[in-house]
Amino acid sequence: MRNRITELFGIQYPIIQGGMIWCSGWELASAVSNAGGLGLIGSGSMYPDILRDQIRKCKLATDKPFGVNVPLLYPDLDQHLEIVVEEGVKIVFTSAGNPAKYTGWLKERGITVVHVVANVKFAKKCMEAGVDAIVAEGFEAGGHNGREETTTMCLIPMIAEQVSIPVIAAGGIGSGKAMAAAFCLGAEGVQVGSRFAATVESSAHQAFKEAIVAAGDGSTELTLKELTPVRLLKNEFYQKVQEAYKNEASVEELQELLGRGRAKKGMFEGDLVEGELEIGQVAAMIHTIPKAGEVVVSMMDEYEAVIARMTSK
Amino acid sequence: MRNRITELFGIQYPIIQGGMIWCSGWELASAVSNAGGLGLIGSGSMYPDILRDQIRKCKLATDKPFGVNVPLLYPDLDQHLEIVVEEGVKIVFTSAGNPAKYTGWLKERGITVVHVVANVKFAKKCMEAGVDAIVAEGFEAGGHNGREETTTMCLIPMIAEQVSIPVIAAGGIGSGKAMAAAFCLGAEGVQVGSRFAATVESSAHQAFKEAIVAAGDGSTELTLKELTPVRLLKNEFYQKVQEAYKNEASVEELQELLGRGRAKKGMFEGDLVEGELEIGQVAAMIHTIPKAGEVVVSMMDEYEAVIARMTSK
Repeated sequence: MRNRITELFGIQYPIIQGGMIWCSGWELASAVSNAGGLGLIGSGSMYPDILRDQIRKCKLATDKPFGVNVPLLYPDLDQHLEIVVEEGVKIVFTSAGNPAKYTGWLKERGITVVHVVANVKFAKKCMEAGVDAIVAEGFEAGGHNGREETTTMCLIPMIAEQVSIPVIAAGGIGSGKAMAAAFCLGAEGVQVGSRFAATVESSAHQAFKEAIVAAGDGSTELTLKELTPVRLLKNEFYQKVQEAYKNEASVEELQELLGRGRAKKGMFEGDLVEGELEIGQVAAMIHTIPKAGEVVVSMMDEYEAVIARMTSK
Repeated sequence: MRNRITELFGIQYPIIQGGMIWCSGWELASAVSNAGGLGLIGSGSMYPDILRDQIRKCKLATDKPFGVNVPLLYPDLDQHLEIVVEEGVKIVFTSAGNPAKYTGWLKERGITVVHVVANVKFAKKCMEAGVDAIVAEGFEAGGHNGREETTTMCLIPMIAEQVSIPVIAAGGIGSGKAMAAAFCLGAEGVQVGSRFAATVESSAHQAFKEAIVAAGDGSTELTLKELTPVRLLKNEFYQKVQEAYKNEASVEELQELLGRGRAKKGMFEGDLVEGELEIGQVAAMIHTIPKAGEVVVSMMDEYEAVIARMTSK
């Protein structure tokens, strides 16, 4: 399969592994890139020196293209961007901020820039900022999310009709079926998070991976909307958030309850009780913990089978 | 196109017009059926004698199959079901209740029964109850909705993997692109609501139809979750609900604010300020008020074009 996304990144399959805090270090990113997709190191949970080390390890582990995801609200942002440039990373996905601020700076340094959005307004801003592609992420996605709550089924065609650059669909996509659906809606690539969080090479704690496998319909909710909306697995910490709501907690009280380090505690250290467990609705369809390369291959196989089924009618 | 859904209903195209209060009387239902889809009279906003009259008019207006949607929580439910049987309606879509309660009674009378669900648990209950097909409706759909907030992209494959009867996708579907996406996910038919609400034959008030056309990304929200979750256009009434939340309104106060007759006031009488305006996220992609038959034809044309595009790669 060749399209604008495979051309843009120089990859075999238009499958991008989403940059996820505490899940996507060099092992996952290089495994996905080696399998023909695009792996992303998620820098959002890394101190600058860790990020540099991760990039160096990734370069040793693959000679295929890979990228780094940089949340634009991160405190060490400037250092992260300098390291990305110094280490010769050629692809950067920015998220959680204004695409106008860093796109020009990155592109002047020869870097391909993709920005993640959850609404039409920011998709248009991306176009104006000169990004090379857009990730459009629906309400069903894990982790931080938009306030419009627009789902992947609605968001992808809305954005694809408004922009001329390629659109990468995210949110609810962990199978070849969903990839085919996203392509019908106008996407030219898919960004897959949750499905890769529960793979062998993911740096998530084994207990979190098993919690993903155990999740079912209704196991997640987009919550903490007064802070930054985030889709979480409904564990004990989530229940405490719900109790806080019942007790009419203020924004400050919610912020204090969330505290610092809860995502690390849950996803990286495996504390399923007190930790914050970010995952998408698609977890309900994740039943195994395969190698990341197997996910890429099985998604492409299923994609081809779906297209064949659709045309045989 | 022939599949289990076209066979089940004896229709040309697997496009079902959703039964919608104040929008889908005999004019809309017969127009959709005459165009080769399946039209449904939405009985939820009708007194029993009105329903009988609507069914009779529909029979005069089309010799093609049509059906009636019956919300199972409706006060005049028993009378509605008696009328459906007396008037010889052959297809009934039930919603908002337990499928176990009436499916057997309807099927004994030779009626094809479909039940609308928003989660996997109720899909399994439908199987046990012996329904002929399931409508699986995602979070993005207009009007009343489930508490799990599972989106169409996630819900369709989840349910299609769990049941052997055909699945009809609903929520976010108003185009041939979205129809193709739903089929990739495992659906064999689509139920389309919002797109048909804004057609010439819809009995919605012209002002409401124009409000649908004016809607954009983020114009709707699933709200009133303490009562029955319902997706509404964000008009002045919706803002009053938001104010009530800020003032920590009780369930009783929310119920009193909602009151009675607000949906009729908004959707049928065109009071865009005080009325309750039920519509899906897909409203953002609705830009015209065509005839219902044109919607059926253009959806099928676009569906075929999407499949052709997918296979040419």
